Amino acid sequence: MNLYDIKGPADIRQMSVSQLNELAADIRSFLIESIAKTGGHLSSNLGVVELTLALHYVFHSPSDKLIFDVGHQSYVHKMITGRLNDFSTLRQYHGLSGFQKRRESEHDVWEAGHSSTSLSAALGITIARDLHHENYQVAAIIGDGALSSGMAMEALNQIGSENRDMVIIFNDNHMSISQNVGAMDEAFTRLRASKPYNTFKSDLSDVLSQSKAGTQILQGMRNIKNTLKDNVVDNSIFGEFNLDYIGPVDGHDLKLMIKVLQIAKRHKGPIVVHVITKKGKGYPFAEQDQEGKWHGVSQFDPKTGQSLAKIPKHHASWSEIIAESLTTMAKQDERILALTPAMISGSKLGKFFATFPDRAFDCGIAEEHSVTLAASLALSGMRPFLSIYSSFMQRAYDQIQQDVARMDLPVVFGIDRCGLVGEDGPTHHGVFDIAMLRTMPNLILSQPKDAQEAQQLLKTAFTQDHPFAIRYPRGSVPFQRMDSIEPIAIGSWTMMQVGEHPACIVITYGSDVDKVIAKAEANGISLIVVNARFFKPLDETMLEKLASLHLDIIVYETDILAGGLSSAILEFYNDRDIIICMHRIGLGDHFVEHGSLPQLRKVEHIDINSLFQVIKEYDNAS
Amino acid sequence: MNLYDIKGPADIRQMSVSQLNELAADIRSFLIESIAKTGGHLSSNLGVVELTLALHYVFHSPSDKLIFDVGHQSYVHKMITGRLNDFSTLRQYHGLSGFQKRRESEHDVWEAGHSSTSLSAALGITIARDLHHENYQVAAIIGDGALSSGMAMEALNQIGSENRDMVIIFNDNHMSISQNVGAMDEAFTRLRASKPYNTFKSDLSDVLSQSKAGTQILQGMRNIKNTLKDNVVDNSIFGEFNLDYIGPVDGHDLKLMIKVLQIAKRHKGPIVVHVITKKGKGYPFAEQDQEGKWHGVSQFDPKTGQSLAKIPKHHASWSEIIAESLTTMAKQDERILALTPAMISGSKLGKFFATFPDRAFDCGIAEEHSVTLAASLALSGMRPFLSIYSSFMQRAYDQIQQDVARMDLPVVFGIDRCGLVGEDGPTHHGVFDIAMLRTMPNLILSQPKDAQEAQQLLKTAFTQDHPFAIRYPRGSVPFQRMDSIEPIAIGSWTMMQVGEHPACIVITYGSDVDKVIAKAEANGISLIVVNARFFKPLDETMLEKLASLHLDIIVYETDILAGGLSSAILEFYNDRDIIICMHRIGLGDHFVEHGSLPQLRKVEHIDINSLFQVIKEYDNAS
Repeated sequence: MNLYDIKGPADIRQMSVSQLNELAADIRSFLIESIAKTGGHLSSNLGVVELTLALHYVFHSPSDKLIFDVGHQSYVHKMITGRLNDFSTLRQYHGLSGFQKRRESEHDVWEAGHSSTSLSAALGITIARDLHHENYQVAAIIGDGALSSGMAMEALNQIGSENRDMVIIFNDNHMSISQNVGAMDEAFTRLRASKPYNTFKSDLSDVLSQSKAGTQILQGMRNIKNTLKDNVVDNSIFGEFNLDYIGPVDGHDLKLMIKVLQIAKRHKGPIVVHVITKKGKGYPFAEQDQEGKWHGVSQFDPKTGQSLAKIPKHHASWSEIIAESLTTMAKQDERILALTPAMISGSKLGKFFATFPDRAFDCGIAEEHSVTLAASLALSGMRPFLSIYSSFMQRAYDQIQQDVARMDLPVVFGIDRCGLVGEDGPTHHGVFDIAMLRTMPNLILSQPKDAQEAQQLLKTAFTQDHPFAIRYPRGSVPFQRMDSIEPIAIGSWTMMQVGEHPACIVITYGSDVDKVIAKAEANGISLIVVNARFFKPLDETMLEKLASLHLDIIVYETDILAGGLSSAILEFYNDRDIIICMHRIGLGDHFVEHGSLPQLRKVEHIDINSLFQVIKEYDNAS
Repeated sequence: MNLYDIKGPADIRQMSVSQLNELAADIRSFLIESIAKTGGHLSSNLGVVELTLALHYVFHSPSDKLIFDVGHQSYVHKMITGRLNDFSTLRQYHGLSGFQKRRESEHDVWEAGHSSTSLSAALGITIARDLHHENYQVAAIIGDGALSSGMAMEALNQIGSENRDMVIIFNDNHMSISQNVGAMDEAFTRLRASKPYNTFKSDLSDVLSQSKAGTQILQGMRNIKNTLKDNVVDNSIFGEFNLDYIGPVDGHDLKLMIKVLQIAKRHKGPIVVHVITKKGKGYPFAEQDQEGKWHGVSQFDPKTGQSLAKIPKHHASWSEIIAESLTTMAKQDERILALTPAMISGSKLGKFFATFPDRAFDCGIAEEHSVTLAASLALSGMRPFLSIYSSFMQRAYDQIQQDVARMDLPVVFGIDRCGLVGEDGPTHHGVFDIAMLRTMPNLILSQPKDAQEAQQLLKTAFTQDHPFAIRYPRGSVPFQRMDSIEPIAIGSWTMMQVGEHPACIVITYGSDVDKVIAKAEANGISLIVVNARFFKPLDETMLEKLASLHLDIIVYETDILAGGLSSAILEFYNDRDIIICMHRIGLGDHFVEHGSLPQLRKVEHIDINSLFQVIKEYDNAS
């Protein structure tokens, strides 16, 4: 059956194993060609082609529920649940989401984007099922990286004690975004190596499934567990959580997987199916990737594997600028350490890790622990730099507040991917962190307008004694390494006047500062442009000066308005009984969809043109 | 040696085991008598008397570092590190903290209050130690409840792979605040039951420590581990995390514990010492407590065990009012479930759990998982009510935002212990949740002014389809169960005028609403008092009406000002070009200390008298 003829999962169940294997090959070709054009998550989807087919062969979605952890590996699932023709719109505005999305299909029962929620989600569905006296299976598909995150273990803890029918597919590719770390990974390695059991087990099921009596035995895996108790089945980390375990099985062997999943589907109580897959399977460039370069990709040439994304000469991404400067500063200051929750590649920390292996720590997908670890290092005389994506940092709200801010410790946070991120959409936009962090006493929050200021803010962070956060977005800007870097006075803003008779004041931050200046100059519009490079503390002297100009103030934010920069400024003026007229531009009270960054900015009316529409009103009035 | 003669841990090390046992008895008497007068954490401290003495006997604080998880069980540690005479000031303003506090003593190297940070903290200190080429030991003391929390497991994962010298004291009392739950607890039970190993192990160390050669063998526990591999030492959940394990040992047997801790201290790499203690040990009332009533206590009569706290007739705590109403509503609506992260007793959910055992879920100390579980239940047609303390809810910022608010699911949050909580201090004050939650799209946030409104808001929450949070503080108020409960229009405030010629408008919330009215009436002050029972959405109609009165507005908040209610009101008026004069009363940009609630309110200028000082200025001016 041709890939394009598949209308739904029922079609999969009509196919033979050899037909399914042919289909798997077609799916791989499609994935590579399609993602080469749109960008997206390639490696993880190439890794789960057979697994997804086997899941849909055995479980009858939508009555059975499939929950993909994070959801970026659900492309194959989408293709065979009626969304193949939408792949040209993948991750584009109003196009197919890069994650599971309930409004897209009845086959998407859960939505995520952040790691390790699938087990809690699956448990909730099984509880509701049992309370409703319904009869279906629930399968969560979770990777080895995601499984080592705290909340996944919290869920395992309750799943093991609730003891409801549930299948946990442990998709073990020995790699999440980057190489996995930690003791659990070693436990998984021990399981992976347990070949004799694997063979024994699949042989056993082969034999048993050939007779009716054998099938009955298979239906009661718990009995098998009891028979084998303390020999193989319980001898896993999952056994410690009271979970039955089958595996490891080859995640690219469709026949074997279908057999094992059939056993798991009939199993009473929660069972872990350990599936070994290869990330990037079938695409040599991705298969050989050890750093996670092929995890999420922009457009590329499928033949050469070369990225089609062009970074202009002498430009570097914000992550690179920060990581590069950090490495330089760490050479002069032995106290500087780098920490990351599983984002070495995304945060461009590879060079730091190579240069200072003893001073670099990959904490795994463990934002909470990583922040408290940083607090403890700071308390012990070190100067930890923790690189963390804005939206994932939300996982560590409490640790930042309680362990870092409350003890007033000099942890430096590099908040990467702040603001709208574009195609990854609502789960990844880093637009809440200003409102979130500015309520925390002792903490300093900043954002550079350019590469020079980025270097200066990083220097500033290491030359003071309080929690210090520097946020920076996706994308690249011109970069030149500074020979000598002067710190910036904490809480100081800068202002620049364009033209002779400014119509109003624009307070903004990040790379928009220079863009606003450039556009005003180009259009002959007179403005005062303020670089609010500190969200906390505010530049109170400048705010008073600005008020004395008796001009209207536009606060141009590219993050959530509620509780953000303009909110802080309103509080300041109010508490000093200063009356000002303020126009606020920023994101309203809703989650922003996925799409290209320019398009999202336009749709949300936070692009430069929207700003200048507002400015023009003042310009005309003056 | 008399308890009062102990000047520091060095004195402990001069004592014989029998002297230490006498000291332990003295300490217990002191704890009971002292806490009976001041209130505080009783059971957990009675449980660790011998353990703490053994720790200080073996580890040389402050050069060796002792980190008590949470820290409420550090009273004995405080008593023998020079703070005995301060116990009459325990938990009082400017008195001894109920947790470890760095400024109190060089023996307190870490501060906490929230669970499960000690392992991350200990790892950070060992990393810093090794980078500084220093030579001391680090011991974290963590309970079985705290160990099942996600971030503890994240830390174990990295500790097992970093493999640095560190001692993890697993203080296993089979009970944290309430009875423990979950599969890990079953794993711990299996360990607890491993008596033969226990005997064998302690016999082994007994024999070995008697000779020099034996001592050398003991020094290399890793070797012993290798010898015993796959027999006993690795056969624990800790083995899965690559951690060596000794135990279980009787946590009230000082001699045995000193021996085992001496082995652990010399051990290379991380080692878990499994210590079985009895919470409340030596005080029968506390020993027999299964519900956690003796975990944290107010003043009591040590002879009878009767609490001296008096709840007035027909009064009930906010927790009771909500839990009672929830139980009533759940009788009429089968979709209603109750969830709690280990707070059945504190949240007064005991009756619900007894009435609806199939619809009640204790998730353990696992705030993150509990929220995502609730999201999944809501998505599956249920109406979960999650009771969660305000300051602990911070652990689940991301899950509330991503899994509940983003998917717009009807989870009802009962945010207990909001506002200042008093004696527990800065780690427990629930003053950040308004600012935290109001940035989350789709979420409704409310607070009742009295028991009637509490019932109505709960009813409202279950008759609508969005995330709905109801916050309520410690303390009790008059309570009468309503026969028929009408829901409240979402986002509606109420106002009341006192007197004929109001001098100003006071916008406030919670039980302060009626207190302000009563005081104004008693003092003949004319006011408009607004009950802002919804923080989100705001009552925009009423805000416009209030502005049209052209009176100054005082927003009287009892939470953090930054990003809070007044901030939201300022945003509203600004965005509608309405000029108002607002005076904001609330908490400034700092963490609030511990002390009695009335005293803290006074010190922070958020008591009713401070409000009326401000009101008087308007009253005189009018």
